[in-house]
Amino acid sequence: MNELTINLNEKLHIPLYEQIYQYIKDDICSARMSCGEKLPSTRALAQYLEVSRSTVEMAYEQLLSEGFIETMPRKGYYVSELEGVYRQNFSGEKYSKVRGKETKKYDYDFNPNGIDLYSFPYNIWRKISKEILIDDRSELFKSGDSQGEEDFRYAIQNYLHQARGVNCTVDQIVVGAGNEYLLMLLGMIFGKNQKIAFETPTYKQAYRLFEKLSYEVTTVDMDQYGMQVNKLRESGANLAYVMPSHQYPLGIVMPIKRRLELLKWAVESEERYIIEDDYDSEFRYKGKPIPALQGYDANGKVIYLGTFSRSIAPAIRVSYMVLPKPLIEAYHKQCEFLSCTVSKVDQCVVQRFMEKGHFERHLNKMRALYKGRHDILLANLKPLMNQCRITGEHAGVHLLLHFTDGRTEEELISLAKEHRIKVYGLSKYNTGSCDQKHATILLGYANISEKDIVKATEILCEIWK
Amino acid sequence: MNELTINLNEKLHIPLYEQIYQYIKDDICSARMSCGEKLPSTRALAQYLEVSRSTVEMAYEQLLSEGFIETMPRKGYYVSELEGVYRQNFSGEKYSKVRGKETKKYDYDFNPNGIDLYSFPYNIWRKISKEILIDDRSELFKSGDSQGEEDFRYAIQNYLHQARGVNCTVDQIVVGAGNEYLLMLLGMIFGKNQKIAFETPTYKQAYRLFEKLSYEVTTVDMDQYGMQVNKLRESGANLAYVMPSHQYPLGIVMPIKRRLELLKWAVESEERYIIEDDYDSEFRYKGKPIPALQGYDANGKVIYLGTFSRSIAPAIRVSYMVLPKPLIEAYHKQCEFLSCTVSKVDQCVVQRFMEKGHFERHLNKMRALYKGRHDILLANLKPLMNQCRITGEHAGVHLLLHFTDGRTEEELISLAKEHRIKVYGLSKYNTGSCDQKHATILLGYANISEKDIVKATEILCEIWK
Repeated sequence: MNELTINLNEKLHIPLYEQIYQYIKDDICSARMSCGEKLPSTRALAQYLEVSRSTVEMAYEQLLSEGFIETMPRKGYYVSELEGVYRQNFSGEKYSKVRGKETKKYDYDFNPNGIDLYSFPYNIWRKISKEILIDDRSELFKSGDSQGEEDFRYAIQNYLHQARGVNCTVDQIVVGAGNEYLLMLLGMIFGKNQKIAFETPTYKQAYRLFEKLSYEVTTVDMDQYGMQVNKLRESGANLAYVMPSHQYPLGIVMPIKRRLELLKWAVESEERYIIEDDYDSEFRYKGKPIPALQGYDANGKVIYLGTFSRSIAPAIRVSYMVLPKPLIEAYHKQCEFLSCTVSKVDQCVVQRFMEKGHFERHLNKMRALYKGRHDILLANLKPLMNQCRITGEHAGVHLLLHFTDGRTEEELISLAKEHRIKVYGLSKYNTGSCDQKHATILLGYANISEKDIVKATEILCEIWK
Repeated sequence: MNELTINLNEKLHIPLYEQIYQYIKDDICSARMSCGEKLPSTRALAQYLEVSRSTVEMAYEQLLSEGFIETMPRKGYYVSELEGVYRQNFSGEKYSKVRGKETKKYDYDFNPNGIDLYSFPYNIWRKISKEILIDDRSELFKSGDSQGEEDFRYAIQNYLHQARGVNCTVDQIVVGAGNEYLLMLLGMIFGKNQKIAFETPTYKQAYRLFEKLSYEVTTVDMDQYGMQVNKLRESGANLAYVMPSHQYPLGIVMPIKRRLELLKWAVESEERYIIEDDYDSEFRYKGKPIPALQGYDANGKVIYLGTFSRSIAPAIRVSYMVLPKPLIEAYHKQCEFLSCTVSKVDQCVVQRFMEKGHFERHLNKMRALYKGRHDILLANLKPLMNQCRITGEHAGVHLLLHFTDGRTEEELISLAKEHRIKVYGLSKYNTGSCDQKHATILLGYANISEKDIVKATEILCEIWK
């Protein structure tokens, strides 16, 4: 027994039986105890360690249940046959808070994906969250509807109908944690052997995702009205991914004529569907918002995608899609077994945020805010109008500068960088196939104050002139 | 007032104000109370029900805020015009319908996927959520780390190391909204031409998901130690999906020998990996929890999957996976462009819930609660021991009855159903290939009280004898 060295420590918060268990286990794992070796009887070990016999029995129980030792009736306990046991090396680093601090390289950032967070209605949000958690109690933590809570879907249906002219019933709506997740569901709904066409340049996330889902992915050139339908037809794709209300990144608003051409294309074959990503539609500064393409679709050909991540906050991981009736059955068949990825609490909070009118108020506020920045940016870029042309204005939260003076994107970007201004080149949105004639710069204004816009554009006009 | 019948039940875990609220809401939704009808004053109703006036006021507050009733200064409370609020009406009906159905068909439900929600620490949860929303402000709503917030991953790493013997660094942890989503990411990490083997019977969600991801899916028979490694080898699969700490549905605890054989299988080829679904490991009633298979893996072959949906609540859509080092690069390449599907708020709440020790306390509480039900269920099934054999005990939240007396699953289930007891047959977990010798019944005890267990088992012993 002397080869079995166990030093129990009463002071440790670890129960004695566990300490014994650990010692023996380590001896086995480190091969200090070899296969087939007999263990001391529980009585003997208890005496030896001066602990109660039941303590030792508990330790042996645990070793038995994990299969480290075996018992033979009226013979005792033996180390099990274990070929090449791996040693447990507890290399796990200790708990320490290390936050990656990034050094501020820029004074001004025209990030086209930015969103203004100072205007987020924290107090209302907190108040609603509190109310929700007081109200519903246990109902709130039961597993819910895999499509999203029905009442929440009513609120979404209501909003989509009022604000976006989308026509649907609640059973067509599927709630999910982010657009990408919903696109994954679409991937499962459509299954294999699909060919999807993207505008070029386009929203790279979606493009890459369908690549990963091993879809055949292709791109279709755009003219000033958006995706060219004849080229789409030539591409042989059966799915078309478009952003009609404000194309990303080009900011093109697809006119009704082109929309109807697209719908016509879809109707030509049963396999064809249009995925309408309406990501930015809430923000339009001229006239009233343009209704969604889905609203014109009489044949169940449009899959509508929307998100609260841009209209409320990026960290709100709540998106929704509206499936055309022909796809609902497929959805139930392929995806219904997946529980909803958005917690009920979050669904309830957003629902109440909408039902109490906060969402509409928030959107109006943001629209006014962004319009102010949009107008000031436009006004202050005037001095550059000899060098470049502006597109993508009056909607969304970014616009584009097309330089016609032969300078490259890199030159313009690095010039700005030298003056601590971050601007974004269009080329990074290219999916390869599309060749740019002119250097094109994106300027996002959602997350930069009017004061900073004035200061930054002053510099830009100076250096880009 | 006599037409307003409210029977409060002190024994229910539902607060009195909520019971009052529900009664009145149901009366309004079912038109037992008509529009414009006057409600009793809070004082009168409080007297009538012998509750405090503030309780009634809370109920009325709730009805007011949901628009079921209106108040007229110095006149009192009246039922609102309900034409407009079709939504509440509908959901109200649906709600009572659902409640009705459940109570109508069964008195007792041994759902193996149940979880006790009355024990959920609502107040702590609400308190933390409130703190979080006061603390972090705008940081909280910026888009975050696609792997999950670093501090949250530290908390998870810490827990996994202490409680599950999992060895990893935070950069190996990926947070996602539910296991299925994380499996989708795995699908993208591994890409095409993979063959995955499942135990049979197994957790069907995962099986079906990989089918949908158009993986080659196969099943491998189990013996009493779990998946048979030689048969796994024959299957030609390069991925193995196992649940070593408490196999679902069979409840087998995989002994160390089999675990090491599995690891050995994985090491034999570079393409081979083991997916360890540790879904139920928190609940073990004999000795201490058995360390995860991942803890024995010295060669980066185990992908560890865990979830808070079972340990905290199903509606908490927070899961995590630990990627072995060889797969991290692939993850960054294939999936990093996808933002995290769990909102930062939810991540922070769970993180603080863990860091303040609430999670551990909650687990201990649930373990004790479930153990009590487990023990009583075992004890009260004794009379059946001539007809059947019990397996899967001492862990998880369900056990299995294997009937050796030739009766079919259907017979046993419908017998129970006749007596308003819901039990579950093993066959529904079969993925086809596996044939059952005996009728096998699953009894889940997570969401049924000790009192009900006693009553129900009494009946079961009578009818199944």
